[in-house]
Amino acid sequence: MHTKAALPITLLNGKQTLPIIEAYFEFNHLKHLYRQGWLNHGIQPKSCESVAEHSFCVALLALFLADEYHLELDTTKVIRMALIHDLGEVYAGDFTPKDAIEKNQKYQLEKQSILQVLNKLPHGLEWIALWEEYEKGESAESQFVHQLDRLEMALQASVYEHLELANLSVFFQSANQALSAQQLKSISRALKDLRD
Amino acid sequence: MHTKAALPITLLNGKQTLPIIEAYFEFNHLKHLYRQGWLNHGIQPKSCESVAEHSFCVALLALFLADEYHLELDTTKVIRMALIHDLGEVYAGDFTPKDAIEKNQKYQLEKQSILQVLNKLPHGLEWIALWEEYEKGESAESQFVHQLDRLEMALQASVYEHLELANLSVFFQSANQALSAQQLKSISRALKDLRD
Repeated sequence: MHTKAALPITLLNGKQTLPIIEAYFEFNHLKHLYRQGWLNHGIQPKSCESVAEHSFCVALLALFLADEYHLELDTTKVIRMALIHDLGEVYAGDFTPKDAIEKNQKYQLEKQSILQVLNKLPHGLEWIALWEEYEKGESAESQFVHQLDRLEMALQASVYEHLELANLSVFFQSANQALSAQQLKSISRALKDLRD
Repeated sequence: MHTKAALPITLLNGKQTLPIIEAYFEFNHLKHLYRQGWLNHGIQPKSCESVAEHSFCVALLALFLADEYHLELDTTKVIRMALIHDLGEVYAGDFTPKDAIEKNQKYQLEKQSILQVLNKLPHGLEWIALWEEYEKGESAESQFVHQLDRLEMALQASVYEHLELANLSVFFQSANQALSAQQLKSISRALKDLRD
């Protein structure tokens, strides 16, 4: 797994501190963790976004799109889910199709990570349940965040292509397959128009 | 202003597309924009966080701290405010004390940036008003997010110091002066204990 630095929590060397500081020294690692899919497709580390940067933009898209186009959704839940959706990668790392990891094994590794980070926090069980809901993908909110996750990937791919860093067709195809909400599909089509 | 790349919106060369895509090509720039204060104090670009990474962690702190310790606050507003609090930097950049820019001039530049990014979105006026509330710093929610902004800076400074990248005393002092909420001050004291 390519990262900018080791997990900050290891630097505490077992020193006791507050649970929220320990959790910060864990989730801060998402600033170090490259989105591995870009590296696999020719983006150089100096230009490659982190999981933290991706999550930030997914959450902003949640904020800007949920209220306007999806009144049936609990927007507050959508935004919170967007913020925590990749916390399982703190310890598990960012698996890509290239890793060919079995779905349940990936889930188990990410679940362990989520428990490790959140169990120590006062409302931890609430966030763990929210992450489980995201993983299950059954609720309308979780399905929307899964789509935003792919849409943000396609938008970032468009930025990389405009910077002429790589041909990222495979990411647009992957996003297209994942989108079902009409409004998100129209954004995907507009991204295609920008490529043509 | 040190950045990893030019503003993505300039790469569209005036091509017409959806407002949400234009907005994305603007706020995506926060992934490119280094937090300039770290560069000014010896952190190398390869180790320096972006404004997007900072904003992500401020929003996570908002999620984890607001509900638990500050029941008087509107948590939903706190999280949304945390997500957009630095959108003014898309066009204005990340000013630091070293720039010695006059407070009102900074506000005007960031206000122009906020309007440029958000005015085109259907709920834009709502987010612009939320940013204005943050800037005014009069509401309890805005004061809390201002403190989280400084607390996240101190937590990041602690990670950089544990990585032995620089001495960042000045950032801890700055954060300490800004914190008034008891629970946040206790986190700041625990960070001091880790330095001693």
